[in-house]
Amino acid sequence: MQQAGPPPPSCSSTSHCFPLSHLHTAECGSETAAEPQKHEVRAGSTTSDLSRMRSIVCFYICYALCLCLGLACVVCVCVWNSQWRGGFAWNGTAQQFNWHPVLMVTGLVVLYGNGAVVYRIPLTWGHNKLPWKLVHAALMLLALVLSIVGLCAVFDFHNTKGIPNMYSLHSWIGIVATALFATQWVFGMAGFLLPCSPIALRKLLKPVHVWFGSIILMLSIVACISGINEKLFFVLNGKNNASYSNLPSEAVLGNSSGVLIVAFGLVVLKILSNHEWQRPDSRPEDMAYAPLLQEENE
Amino acid sequence: MQQAGPPPPSCSSTSHCFPLSHLHTAECGSETAAEPQKHEVRAGSTTSDLSRMRSIVCFYICYALCLCLGLACVVCVCVWNSQWRGGFAWNGTAQQFNWHPVLMVTGLVVLYGNGAVVYRIPLTWGHNKLPWKLVHAALMLLALVLSIVGLCAVFDFHNTKGIPNMYSLHSWIGIVATALFATQWVFGMAGFLLPCSPIALRKLLKPVHVWFGSIILMLSIVACISGINEKLFFVLNGKNNASYSNLPSEAVLGNSSGVLIVAFGLVVLKILSNHEWQRPDSRPEDMAYAPLLQEENE
Repeated sequence: MQQAGPPPPSCSSTSHCFPLSHLHTAECGSETAAEPQKHEVRAGSTTSDLSRMRSIVCFYICYALCLCLGLACVVCVCVWNSQWRGGFAWNGTAQQFNWHPVLMVTGLVVLYGNGAVVYRIPLTWGHNKLPWKLVHAALMLLALVLSIVGLCAVFDFHNTKGIPNMYSLHSWIGIVATALFATQWVFGMAGFLLPCSPIALRKLLKPVHVWFGSIILMLSIVACISGINEKLFFVLNGKNNASYSNLPSEAVLGNSSGVLIVAFGLVVLKILSNHEWQRPDSRPEDMAYAPLLQEENE
Repeated sequence: MQQAGPPPPSCSSTSHCFPLSHLHTAECGSETAAEPQKHEVRAGSTTSDLSRMRSIVCFYICYALCLCLGLACVVCVCVWNSQWRGGFAWNGTAQQFNWHPVLMVTGLVVLYGNGAVVYRIPLTWGHNKLPWKLVHAALMLLALVLSIVGLCAVFDFHNTKGIPNMYSLHSWIGIVATALFATQWVFGMAGFLLPCSPIALRKLLKPVHVWFGSIILMLSIVACISGINEKLFFVLNGKNNASYSNLPSEAVLGNSSGVLIVAFGLVVLKILSNHEWQRPDSRPEDMAYAPLLQEENE
């Protein structure tokens, strides 16, 4: 069952838990002894409210940064490929290849990262989890589809030109990231959205799902950076008076896109790793797993 | 003050904390009411011991994997550069460049990763923290020195050959990783080893130090993978009948080194992110920060 009210205060450490156990002890004693402790509890509650408010404000600053950096990544990689690399087409030429960086960065990094942090948005905590599960699954599906189309663009381009596929370290890391992402989506769908999946399986699957979620993002970033680096060496090879080592404006834009991708990834990982920003009913200490149908009925 | 005895059980969640508060309440009540609860506590203690033992076994499996992968990374990158790239020298030639991948992988990834997980080794938990702080600082200093010598190797090679420095995305990410690492080492030394640093500063610095520790490792891995990918494109460029796209044995070795580096990084990040594997007196709920001199005197 999902909570409809505001989230309860988290209790993740002994420093948070001990005031509660102190109250238990006080209730066993005299009324006079309990009175001052009630004041302490009220004061503690106000401090806790302030701390929670500060935590929420910090989250929204990080989230705004995440949205801005994500948008900047997509804009930079689109401008690079449209203005410096000749734009887009699907005809086996270099213009078809240009879809590859745009779709991989948009799908495997930006949409993926935004899909991963959906549950962290405090505005969603007061609502039933199911619609947000569907938003998470839909964003991830869109990210996966874009990534697969991005892979098709480069495979088709290579096949048309007679270039072998899957030989570079960039391609090895990239294909592992996409394959893990597809597997993660299927297991996530089967484990967390199918009504027949047992609660015990969800409890077992959840930490694996969360851990692989972060791993896939890291691998995607590694693949993107090595890919951008490789592409800039390919195209700024000294011909047409454009050499990467002279840092022409295309190189600065390409490098900046890479820096933005890394910054975006780190902000997403920061959001995911902060315990205070976890949806309260998803925290390890009060994990309430309910099958899909049960959530729908309640 | 550091604990000399075995670590206390961790109490990171309400489910762990509530049995304690339950015991508090029982002590206020009658003896007869307390008796069955003592049995429950003993049963709970056995379960907790078993769970801790399983956690320690899991740690050592991960730690063994970390050591093996780290060794494999260093061996692969050494064999690649000695057998396929002509070995090592310090004379401004390509043989000087060969120190760059070897020292960066050994310093910025393998030694760094091993230095980061020192506090997680349960065998060290029963001892004073100070010697392990010194081991951590010494490993990190060695890692930093190797990384700086690795950077000198490539800068000196570029300067001798008249090749500009710091133009590629690989170099941008790599220099940020090394600069952050140097800053992190200085702040870590000043904040956690200097006796004059106040406890309040240590409390403030600790989460930042831990977070930047992981970020630096991620950036190092991104820099290594883009560097290996770039190097393989440079040297297997179709001349001498060796093309990267034909996947000759050098390409397989280079790619495999990259895969091992990523695997090593993920194992280290897994070890660092597991709350159960934190040194008990370093866990957020019972963070006992003591200045250096105080530790030495006790």
